[in-house]
Amino acid sequence: MAPVPNGRYLFKEIPVGFPIPGQTTVYDESQTIDLHTVPLNGGFLVKVLVLSIDPYIRSKMRDPSIDSYTPAYFLNEPLYGYGLAVVLRSEDATLHPGDHIYGIHTFKHYSVKADASQYRVIKNEEKLPWSAYVGICGMAGETACYAWKEYARPQKGQVAFVTAGAGPVGATVIQLAKADGMKVIASAGSDDKVDFIKSVGADVAFNYKTERTADVLAKEGPVDVYWDNVGGETLEAAIEHSARYARFIECGMISAYNSSSSYHVKNLTKILSRELSINGFIVSSLRAKYVDAFYAEFPARVARGEIQYKEYPVRGLAEAGQAIADVQSGKNFGKCVLIVADD
Amino acid sequence: MAPVPNGRYLFKEIPVGFPIPGQTTVYDESQTIDLHTVPLNGGFLVKVLVLSIDPYIRSKMRDPSIDSYTPAYFLNEPLYGYGLAVVLRSEDATLHPGDHIYGIHTFKHYSVKADASQYRVIKNEEKLPWSAYVGICGMAGETACYAWKEYARPQKGQVAFVTAGAGPVGATVIQLAKADGMKVIASAGSDDKVDFIKSVGADVAFNYKTERTADVLAKEGPVDVYWDNVGGETLEAAIEHSARYARFIECGMISAYNSSSSYHVKNLTKILSRELSINGFIVSSLRAKYVDAFYAEFPARVARGEIQYKEYPVRGLAEAGQAIADVQSGKNFGKCVLIVADD
Repeated sequence: MAPVPNGRYLFKEIPVGFPIPGQTTVYDESQTIDLHTVPLNGGFLVKVLVLSIDPYIRSKMRDPSIDSYTPAYFLNEPLYGYGLAVVLRSEDATLHPGDHIYGIHTFKHYSVKADASQYRVIKNEEKLPWSAYVGICGMAGETACYAWKEYARPQKGQVAFVTAGAGPVGATVIQLAKADGMKVIASAGSDDKVDFIKSVGADVAFNYKTERTADVLAKEGPVDVYWDNVGGETLEAAIEHSARYARFIECGMISAYNSSSSYHVKNLTKILSRELSINGFIVSSLRAKYVDAFYAEFPARVARGEIQYKEYPVRGLAEAGQAIADVQSGKNFGKCVLIVADD
Repeated sequence: MAPVPNGRYLFKEIPVGFPIPGQTTVYDESQTIDLHTVPLNGGFLVKVLVLSIDPYIRSKMRDPSIDSYTPAYFLNEPLYGYGLAVVLRSEDATLHPGDHIYGIHTFKHYSVKADASQYRVIKNEEKLPWSAYVGICGMAGETACYAWKEYARPQKGQVAFVTAGAGPVGATVIQLAKADGMKVIASAGSDDKVDFIKSVGADVAFNYKTERTADVLAKEGPVDVYWDNVGGETLEAAIEHSARYARFIECGMISAYNSSSSYHVKNLTKILSRELSINGFIVSSLRAKYVDAFYAEFPARVARGEIQYKEYPVRGLAEAGQAIADVQSGKNFGKCVLIVADD
């Protein structure tokens, strides 16, 4: 059979502020692939169905000499990230054509992969859309569930404050906190996001662009568990209005990602006087401990409608750059999933 | 028998920067007490032997309207703090004349106290000097031991960095870290303190006034456990040179206590990328969990010479203000103990 085009989405230039589609990244269709004859060398050939577009992608678009928890992308090479693909051919005994596998996939329609142990076969007995497995039942849900179990120590009647509450992680955290009997304060950056936050159960929801976070926390706090997605001035407000022994879960500091002159928190001495515990984490570090319980329980809760979620689907690999930009600027409303191909 | 003078050390004025003996605090001998006839009302009469002079005392010399973990001192009332006293008379069935009790005592030669449950009877089977029980075997040793057990998760061959390493807490932490097989970096503010730090076992000891902390950590780190006594710029250096999964134990931020314009840490995003856990604590919150094991083991280790310590004794209740000022300015070398009376 004839080779088919194999479009790729390439990293072209390190951005200074926000990434610019077509400049920071470009879609390239110069390569082709023969799906029937491409050598597998003991590995397997996959067709990418859905890619997850997340805030952390920005941190990989950097000078590789800058140290970080996640390696930098290579210039002129395709991006990569969490996604779901279907196996077309396999020489690996653990994978079979038709298997759907979740893990790190290349921003490329078809790829030959080598290490099956890096992927998880998703059976989807719940019959959820495949996109759910890169969002609510993928890294976003994992992030919320793992760190909540590891750090939150929730107590009934205590107060949780969740930033980026309309995001895929934040909205899930709100629902976990409510299920644990907490009062939940949550913020977002637009009125329709605030409505969504309320619809998933937040007791107090506000638009941080029109109301001061510090004022809301002074009235509705103090805060026992702070889920931080933004850092900076919001982190300072949470420290200022923390309860004694409060747990801070540092999931993101998006306020600092696109700016070199970030806000400097001024009240760190309260870490001592309030006896705070502040915990940074990367989801992959908690995965081994919690992953089996997660897949055994969480997709079923989603399928039963106990956990609600919202997607922001973008269609077409060529639109990856725009999807990334939307996530960095906060334009997306719901978990950004890039639909690359149908099953 | 005739009443005897009962000197008191009073809080007179809220200091702006460093406390000034004779102005912030004054010694007062206007009161007397009849030790044989003073009514006990079911309580007990104590004679104070040794008082502990610690950095946190400064934080109690504040406007009481400012919220903190520890109540403010009352103006024109005596100071109070951890100390050791001997019971002279008792109407409480759990205490007897001659019992030595550790707990919060008033800066006053003789006091009638009401609640025996707030004190611990010290048997001193190790025959240590009583002053040891307000320092190395009192709050300083408790602070080091409790927080080390709760937060350090030490691993052989990993690196600990201890600030204020010549202080009573810091020097103890150095010895706990060495006993757990760690490499220990420690800092202090004078060359003779650096010599002492080396003598208790630190692998790398430096004078932070003549060497940059960041340079030493860049060379000798990265740091897996940071014992913070100072905060500010030093905390920033420890974050910058932290290992992944490093544990920060926030014991003090003395750099911020006497200044309203403290240094602002600029690299908090590394809490995420390095997956740091930063833990503030007050020793009293950990006491219930660890106190019995502490008294069962630690004084014996000190008596056997396994844990070394250094005292900075000041003699006479009237010198309390000077002792406090010495601790705030770092003039003391060793645990400051105020010897109020002999046994």
